[in-house]
This record gives sequence, structure tokens and C-alpha cells, in this order.
Amino acid sequence: MKNNVALEEAQDLLLSVAQPAQECEIPLFDAVGRVLSREIRAPIHLPPFDKSPLDGYAVRALDTERATAAQPVILEVIEEVAAGHTAGKKITPGTAIKVMTGSPIPAGADAVIKYEDVKRTGKLCKLFTPLRPGNNIILAGEDVKKGEAVAGRGTLVSPALVGLIGALGYAEAAVFNKVKIAVISTGDELVDCSQKLQPGKIYNSNLPSLVAACLKLGAQITALGNVPDELESIADIVALGLADADIVITTGGVSVGDYDVVPDALARLGVYIIYRGVDMKPGSPVVAGTKDGKFIICLSGNPAAALITFELIAVPLIKKKMGLVNYLPARVGAVMSDGFAKPSPQRRFLRGRFHVSEEGKNYVDLTGEQSNGVLKSLVNCNAYIDVPAGSGRIAAGQDVSVLIVGDVFAR
Amino acid sequence: MKNNVALEEAQDLLLSVAQPAQECEIPLFDAVGRVLSREIRAPIHLPPFDKSPLDGYAVRALDTERATAAQPVILEVIEEVAAGHTAGKKITPGTAIKVMTGSPIPAGADAVIKYEDVKRTGKLCKLFTPLRPGNNIILAGEDVKKGEAVAGRGTLVSPALVGLIGALGYAEAAVFNKVKIAVISTGDELVDCSQKLQPGKIYNSNLPSLVAACLKLGAQITALGNVPDELESIADIVALGLADADIVITTGGVSVGDYDVVPDALARLGVYIIYRGVDMKPGSPVVAGTKDGKFIICLSGNPAAALITFELIAVPLIKKKMGLVNYLPARVGAVMSDGFAKPSPQRRFLRGRFHVSEEGKNYVDLTGEQSNGVLKSLVNCNAYIDVPAGSGRIAAGQDVSVLIVGDVFAR
Repeated sequence: MKNNVALEEAQDLLLSVAQPAQECEIPLFDAVGRVLSREIRAPIHLPPFDKSPLDGYAVRALDTERATAAQPVILEVIEEVAAGHTAGKKITPGTAIKVMTGSPIPAGADAVIKYEDVKRTGKLCKLFTPLRPGNNIILAGEDVKKGEAVAGRGTLVSPALVGLIGALGYAEAAVFNKVKIAVISTGDELVDCSQKLQPGKIYNSNLPSLVAACLKLGAQITALGNVPDELESIADIVALGLADADIVITTGGVSVGDYDVVPDALARLGVYIIYRGVDMKPGSPVVAGTKDGKFIICLSGNPAAALITFELIAVPLIKKKMGLVNYLPARVGAVMSDGFAKPSPQRRFLRGRFHVSEEGKNYVDLTGEQSNGVLKSLVNCNAYIDVPAGSGRIAAGQDVSVLIVGDVFAR
Repeated sequence: MKNNVALEEAQDLLLSVAQPAQECEIPLFDAVGRVLSREIRAPIHLPPFDKSPLDGYAVRALDTERATAAQPVILEVIEEVAAGHTAGKKITPGTAIKVMTGSPIPAGADAVIKYEDVKRTGKLCKLFTPLRPGNNIILAGEDVKKGEAVAGRGTLVSPALVGLIGALGYAEAAVFNKVKIAVISTGDELVDCSQKLQPGKIYNSNLPSLVAACLKLGAQITALGNVPDELESIADIVALGLADADIVITTGGVSVGDYDVVPDALARLGVYIIYRGVDMKPGSPVVAGTKDGKFIICLSGNPAAALITFELIAVPLIKKKMGLVNYLPARVGAVMSDGFAKPSPQRRFLRGRFHVSEEGKNYVDLTGEQSNGVLKSLVNCNAYIDVPAGSGRIAAGQDVSVLIVGDVFAR
């Protein structure tokens, strides 16, 4: 067991042993937001055949060589092809075939002229400008070549990728299973919102916020509820979580006080404690352990501290288990809009809102009160300002380094 | 009916008449990703009572006034309060009560001293430094004051907001209903991926990509499948969509060719056509209509054009119906990493990937081939570069204006 590790070590100690979930095949329609477990290679060209990008006439470019406004070339229209159909005839010298957007180019043709650029009279059409071979022809494989890798293992499936996979003819996609997460809160002081608030009690916010955070990631959640600060009860419910879930998340009971019995409960279950304590504020009292390839992450009971350490320590682990290749929060530079008066003897993460101006400059605003228990400043927070240990006060206008943890452009 | 409107007018003609969906109450645990239909006001203070932020001893500051390392003040510990419980006794001069993180401050106390800063011997504790009134006390209402509005109507519910709503004691949240969308593709050339690809046919990519895009937005989808280019069949299926959905999306059949029968099908159904054609490339052949307060948006059959116009015209409408207050894509400035050689006589949206450097500069890279049918360049696209009509070639390093349409920091 390590004590008071740096955040990056806390992440790495989990990520270095975590493996993605098993894979499964699911209908393509359900694949958006999932992660590909296998590279996708194109079994066909896209488009599958040379085709017309517009409604017009397929011709031989050679036939149009001498066309001018004064001396148009006249071709015989030998067939009209509907979209989704192929020409029955071949283009021979002096002939044209009417094609639609997306029609295959008829055999013998090497150019297409726009419908509007032709004068049609009965079976005949007049062309007033010469074409070059290849004009208005989309070649087979222009979008994707047969055999080409269109998406790698670990790719998050977007709507456009669903379209591309569909265009290649796949009805299913191989993806990683959803990550199974059990969420438990601990604390005698917590009551469920269905109950009346007695003196000294507070409503449980950790369970709903962490369940919501896991759902947002697309995980499969079991909310195991709240248990009192008793070793026995905590060990029982953590054991229940470990029986089914890939990751168990708990809140509360990880400080060093008399009622902080979560570490003892883990010890009783034979959980190997990887580390205890992370050198950051808020959220330093984190305990991470593992048993039988499963993970247990025990967060502070302070609502804001719990969510921040969840984001920085549990989310990268969950994302790696989801199969994502990029699981760490992006780090960018920004200018502080506000000052922050307190010095930071310990490394500190300030809750902020990162935004990009229309002029292309990046700012981060503090979202409010920064203490451990305060949730309000997390509501509009999309970034944590990474304040190094030993920093003094931060002035407005100062350059800072920021970890992105939410939607920047949602406003 | 208007023809060939500007994009902003195309958006506004729909948004100005669209109303958010009906509201409903749902369990708080399901509320993440939904949109609040009512402002949330705090029925209680948060925290509900003055509390200790740490494990320590609650005392009267006055009693500690003369404490020094050499001459400590000695107080009698009259009670030990567990987390979630309240003190039974009151602090009187010369006494202290042991409290835990989160404990209510006992009556008579006005300061808390850290556990580690005290020397405890039996019933007595020694303090070596004076405290000031208010030291280590979190006041009731420090996070949220009773009566305060914590989130407005139209707010997207984040995990932190779920936590905050839970902390206020609410078991449910009032949100807007999911938007019901029916998706239809049209085209004789399209085959389902369960079928074998015959000459001249292509696999249907529009239906899966648009269903995926609607699912990603959290909508309730009915995928009505593909219909051939026949007025009758199209009218029937659009009528089916309009019977149940708030918005019907179709692809294909909206150009000006012989098989572009979608507008006629709408006319037969008595749909009021709001506009036909949007002045942009790709995706100009868009038709938007309305009937009985429902909307129908008919997109190009070209896969990339369909997705781009869906994003710029349908998504803002869907977001407004979801109840979001910010429904238009964010616009930011960026530097083009690549050049684009073609001039743009018409307003053009180029598919790009917007990213923020660690130094805080914003770039946009082209994601590949830009023609109407090409899906591959949409897979990693998170931004459209807005190229004004009449632009010449764009040089690498040039400043451009960009609409954000995807995850910028997902990498």
C-alpha cells in the first residue's frame, strides 16, 4: 500500500492493471456512444461503383470534343435510368443515357453532363460545351477503398461512424460490454430524500450524483444505497457490490476519524489496498483497492470532494474499462478571469468554467465557493484549474493549466 | 413558402414557432441528461445547520483566548458526538464536545479545533493556540440559502445538479418530455444491410446515422425504415410518422429531379411548406414543413449533406423542443491548419476538427475529402468551418469562424 500519492500516480496505479471489458456484438442502431472492440475494415468500395453526382446525361467525352454554343453536338438518348437502377444498354459513339444522382455510370460512358446544361428535344439532346473524361464521375472507392481500416479498436462510436458502418453493409458492431458499477454511500448522517430531515442529518447527495455521473458515462449501474458507519454493514454491502460489478464506488468513511471504518471493512474482505490518500485538495482521503481483478474506489463523503476525485480517478479507470484509448482528461492552457486569494500549500483543483471566445482566446472563470462540501460551484463547472503545491494567490489574467471535465461548448 | 433561405433564417423560421415538449416528473436518478422544466428553489439551507468541517473539539473561543504552547488551556470533554448525531449537552465555560466532520455545532460553541491540534488525556483536552469565533465552522446556508434559485428552467441536468437537487431533499425532478422523432429514408437505390448488394444499389447509411444522432440527443426514436421513390408510399409513411412523433425527419427525394417526389408527398398530406432550399453547401436541398404543430424536415439523400443539415437545422429545433435555452451551435474563432484550394461561390461548411493547444491557441484541421457523399470526413469532425459565399482559396494559417458540433476534448 502507498500513502498520499500524486494524482498522476493514483491514476496510473489503476490504469496500468485495468483491462477493457469483454466484447459483444450489438445491433448497429444501438452502437452510438459505445466503443469499438475491433478495427473495422471495408469489405467493399464506397461508393461501390462509379456513379453520377447529379441528374444528367452519361456520354463519351470524345463525342463532345467539338461542341460549341454555335455548333452544338447532338446525341441520341438511348435509355433513361432511374435512381437505384442500372442501364441495360451501353454507350456507343453518338449516344447518351439519362442518369440520376447516384446512378451507376453506364458502360462505355466516361463523363456526365448536367441536366440543365443540355437541350433535350424528343430522343435527341444538344450539348454546347466539350467534356473531359472523368467529368462529373465519382469513382468507386472515392470515399473508402475496399480493405481500408475506417475505425480502430477503442473508437467511440459517433452518429457519422454508425452511418459509415451501415454504408459498408454491417448490421452489427463489435463493442465492449458496458462497465458494471456499484455505488454505495456510507454515513449515519445521511438520509434518503423520501425521509424527513431530523436534526444533525443531511440529505444524501453523493448517491444520486455518482449514479448520475456513471449513467452519463454509459455504465450499467447498481445503486446499493446508503449504509451506516459500521464495519459489518459496510463489509457486507461492498461484498455484494464486488460479487457483480467491475468497479465498486463508495463515499464516506475514509478519513482518519473514529467512524472512518471503510478501510477496515475492505481489509476484512481481503481487498488489496493499492493506495490510501491522494495529494490534492479537495478529495485527498481516497482509498483504492482491488480484489479478483475488480476495483474498489472509496471517495470522501464531502459531496464536492467526492465528485472531483470521482472525475479525476474513477472516470479514467471507467473509460479504460469501456475500451476507450483516450481516458485521461484533456489538459489545456487558459487565462484566469478571476483571482483566487488563498495560497495553496497543497496541490489544489479549483472548479471553473472554461470557454473559448469568438476571437479564439481561452478563459477560465471560477464557478463560486470552493470548499469541500459545496456542490453549487460544480453545477456549471466544466474544468478544474490545476494549482501547483506552493502557489500563492492567483491574480486575474494569470495563465493557468486546466483539466477539461465537461461540455465546453454547451453554454 | 420561401426558397433558398440563408441558414440563420432556416433555423429561425422553425425555432420561432417551436415550443418545448410537455413536462413530466421523473425520479431524480433518471434525470441526468434531461432538461429542467421548472426553476428549482431551495426549500432548506445547505448545509441545513452550522457544522464542523473536520474531526475536532467544539469550544467557546473566549475560553481559548490565553492558550499558548507553554501555557495551554485545559477544557473538560463533556460529550463525544458521532457523525449524524447531535450533542445532548450544551457547551458551558471550560467545556468542550468532541465532534466529527459534518457534526452540528453544539449549542454554546462558536469554534472548532482540529483533533490533531489538541492533547487529550482522559476527560481533559489541552489547547495550545487561541481560536477566534467562527474558526472551523461551516455556517448553515453557506452553500445554498433557503429560497435561493439553484437552477433555472431549461437547464441541462448534470451529475452535480442531480447531487444538489438530492441534497435539497427532492426525490423527483420536473423535466421536459423526451422529443419524439420519426426517421424515414427514401430511395430505390438503398438496401438494408441484411440484404445482398445488387448492382446499382448502395447500403442505407442515412437511417442508421440519423437514428444514432437522435439517440445521442436523448430523443425517443421511431425508425420507420426505407421507402421507394413513390409519392404514395412516401405520403403514407410520413403520415404514419406525423401521427405519433413531434418531428419527422426524411432523407432523399428533395432535389429537383424526376424522382424527387417528397415535396409532392408533403403537399398531398396538407403539410405547410415553410421553405425549400437553404443557401449552403453541402445540403442545400432541404425542405422544412409543419402540420398541426409538428415539424417535418426533409434532408438530402447524400449521406454527408444529410448529417450536416441535420446538425445545423434539425438539432437546434430538437434542442429547443427538449427545453434547452441554448440550442444553437457555439461559434468560435480558429486558425486553419490546412489550406483549402477550391473557391466557394456559395456559402460552404467544411468538415473540420477543432482543437485547443496546451498553449491555449485554437486550430481547426480539415478532416478529409469534402464532397457531398463522403461520410469518412464526418467521423472525426467536431466543427464546421463557415466559409462565406464568394471566398477564394483558404490558406493554411488563415483565421476562420467555426461552428462547434461535437466533442472538442474527447480526442
